Amino acid sequence: MDERTGLPVVGMVGAGQLARMTHQAAVALGQSLRVLADSADDGAALVAHDVVVGDYRSLEDLRAFAVGCDALTFDHEHVPNAHIAALEADGVTVHPGAAALVFAQDKAEMRRRLSTLGVPCPRWAPIESRADLEGFAEQGGWPVVLKAARGGYDGKGVWVVSSLAEAEPVLASGTPLIVEEKVTIVRELAADVARSPFGQGAVWPVVETVQRDGICVEVLAPAPDLDDETAEQAQALALRIAQELGVTGVLAVELFQTADGLIVNELAMRPHNSAHWTIEGSLTSQFEQHLRAVLDYPLGATDQVAPVVVMANLLGGPDDVTPKGIDERVHHCFAHWPDVKIHLYGKQFRPGRKVGHVTALGRDLETVRRRAHEAAQYLMFGDMGLGDASATAARHG
Amino acid sequence: MDERTGLPVVGMVGAGQLARMTHQAAVALGQSLRVLADSADDGAALVAHDVVVGDYRSLEDLRAFAVGCDALTFDHEHVPNAHIAALEADGVTVHPGAAALVFAQDKAEMRRRLSTLGVPCPRWAPIESRADLEGFAEQGGWPVVLKAARGGYDGKGVWVVSSLAEAEPVLASGTPLIVEEKVTIVRELAADVARSPFGQGAVWPVVETVQRDGICVEVLAPAPDLDDETAEQAQALALRIAQELGVTGVLAVELFQTADGLIVNELAMRPHNSAHWTIEGSLTSQFEQHLRAVLDYPLGATDQVAPVVVMANLLGGPDDVTPKGIDERVHHCFAHWPDVKIHLYGKQFRPGRKVGHVTALGRDLETVRRRAHEAAQYLMFGDMGLGDASATAARHG
Repeated sequence: MDERTGLPVVGMVGAGQLARMTHQAAVALGQSLRVLADSADDGAALVAHDVVVGDYRSLEDLRAFAVGCDALTFDHEHVPNAHIAALEADGVTVHPGAAALVFAQDKAEMRRRLSTLGVPCPRWAPIESRADLEGFAEQGGWPVVLKAARGGYDGKGVWVVSSLAEAEPVLASGTPLIVEEKVTIVRELAADVARSPFGQGAVWPVVETVQRDGICVEVLAPAPDLDDETAEQAQALALRIAQELGVTGVLAVELFQTADGLIVNELAMRPHNSAHWTIEGSLTSQFEQHLRAVLDYPLGATDQVAPVVVMANLLGGPDDVTPKGIDERVHHCFAHWPDVKIHLYGKQFRPGRKVGHVTALGRDLETVRRRAHEAAQYLMFGDMGLGDASATAARHG
Repeated sequence: MDERTGLPVVGMVGAGQLARMTHQAAVALGQSLRVLADSADDGAALVAHDVVVGDYRSLEDLRAFAVGCDALTFDHEHVPNAHIAALEADGVTVHPGAAALVFAQDKAEMRRRLSTLGVPCPRWAPIESRADLEGFAEQGGWPVVLKAARGGYDGKGVWVVSSLAEAEPVLASGTPLIVEEKVTIVRELAADVARSPFGQGAVWPVVETVQRDGICVEVLAPAPDLDDETAEQAQALALRIAQELGVTGVLAVELFQTADGLIVNELAMRPHNSAHWTIEGSLTSQFEQHLRAVLDYPLGATDQVAPVVVMANLLGGPDDVTPKGIDERVHHCFAHWPDVKIHLYGKQFRPGRKVGHVTALGRDLETVRRRAHEAAQYLMFGDMGLGDASATAARHG
């Protein structure tokens, strides 16, 4: 508790954009988020008051950081699970706890547990040897998807391979792997929920997540033309997973919609890109909800405040316009799209890097989507083109 | 400019709740608000990264604070006008500038200027002597309203007096005063606008501000049952005042609605309590808009996102529950009103002090207003009573 305000102190390990946006939500609740940053230049470290620079891989640093925190939570999944368990053994309140978080840290653990629960997953297997992979491919055929069991994100740590030869370099790297069937999908959805230690659950409308090269580029809320039955199924599934796995805080369930129904792709136990639209688009943002959940406050209403909300990620273009060019682009963006909301994360614009997002609200999907897309394209490329890779290359000579 | 991000640095003199909420808006724009705080415990100083503790009455402190700021702006009107003029002479970009801000700092200057512009004001006069007051009252009769020309806020510095005898203590205090007729009003309204140095103006829907003991307790957006003609008149008036006075940033025009039309009550040239509802209730909050204006960015769309938005101030109850009791109240408030948004300013709860606000959105005025009111009452008094002074006194023995 902060003795000046009487309000709790949440410590977030990691100081990227998720911590940055969580701090914004904390301020409204009378709080000030404490962040454990890798560097004083991290996105959240630039804007939070209570910044500790330290190493999330060091139990000593984590222990020092936790002193005075009412609850500890995470901006990413990379804190060693054993350290989290050790903090809990010390008596630190950690949400999500080690026992839950392992299912977001290790894909083999996740698949094993979800399979036990009867949750629909792709056919999968752990890979210990070449023989394991050959055996898996013999049953379902090539191509298959290899995934690093730990540490992957945004398409990193995922390889679609069409033969054993293609798989060789990945196998040879020594990374612990799982293999999954390559699912034929209609589209990707996400069901985002929050669960408190008390056991209360809250769920946002199911969204469509549009991916390019394994990275989410756009989120449409609600998922267009999704039938009620499937939407409710997705929400019920996400709430059930949160409960069965003992998740506390926000849980994002990434789903494949297929001709045969829903399949769980990935889990994330923290605020997630698929719910950034909730900042303007829902009565309670995922960042506020995450804080409420980890503090065991009652959860907030999740009503969507406009019929259509579209979020477009800002992915760094081929040239880095920061620092000198971005302010001018912001000027023009504001002039052209006065209704579009900009979120910049305080990062350098490296190619493909998530450096911010924009959100548009309205009634007509096509209009709202176009405005979000064009504003995002303009901020990243300085024009309103379609921004596909070839056009971009051509434009930049 | 922040060399790491390529984005501008705004410095705000004062670190109260307005700076606190402006920092939240700055974060989305990739910025980090620099605040000049009286004390390290000020509301904004608890949450901002870039905090300077200093004296806003010291030109030396102001000059040091301004170094590296792309624009300087204000959380309050108390910075000596001559200091602001000196900063401008130094080449510092200040919004609003000294020439405009004087009309929010000095009520005699404001009334003189607005009268020249033909803007409807109460009948008024500067008071140099008892004879001035007697002469004024002879023309219009008692009671009259005495106002401190400088430094008043939230009902402080305003005295309704029914005779020369009643006015004596105020006159004797030596405070520079103006006198105004006591206007018979239907209700109070506010027309909030923003204006950029380029000259762009933007206006929010006109709101009703409900006052008790001279303090705003509730804001209803839009003002219920306000006819379109009067609403447009109020908006046009506020935009005209902003332009004529050269205001840059947010301008709040407090209005009396009377049987004979609109009359200007007060001006504020900063984010204002009457527009706190815009955080959730408008596409662009007044805090983001103020930043856009002082940086000469194009202004944001001001559409209201729900048919009815009600803001209720949190005014400290007769006992201070901070620090030990407020967290429990927040728990219960969240449980009972999951749709109501809480904003706490990080202050001690002194009786009558503005320590936060709540906002509710919806379709039905009566429902939305009741929910906001009850949530505010609960947070301040620990129950859902009507909270009028006598009931409160009875409840607290």
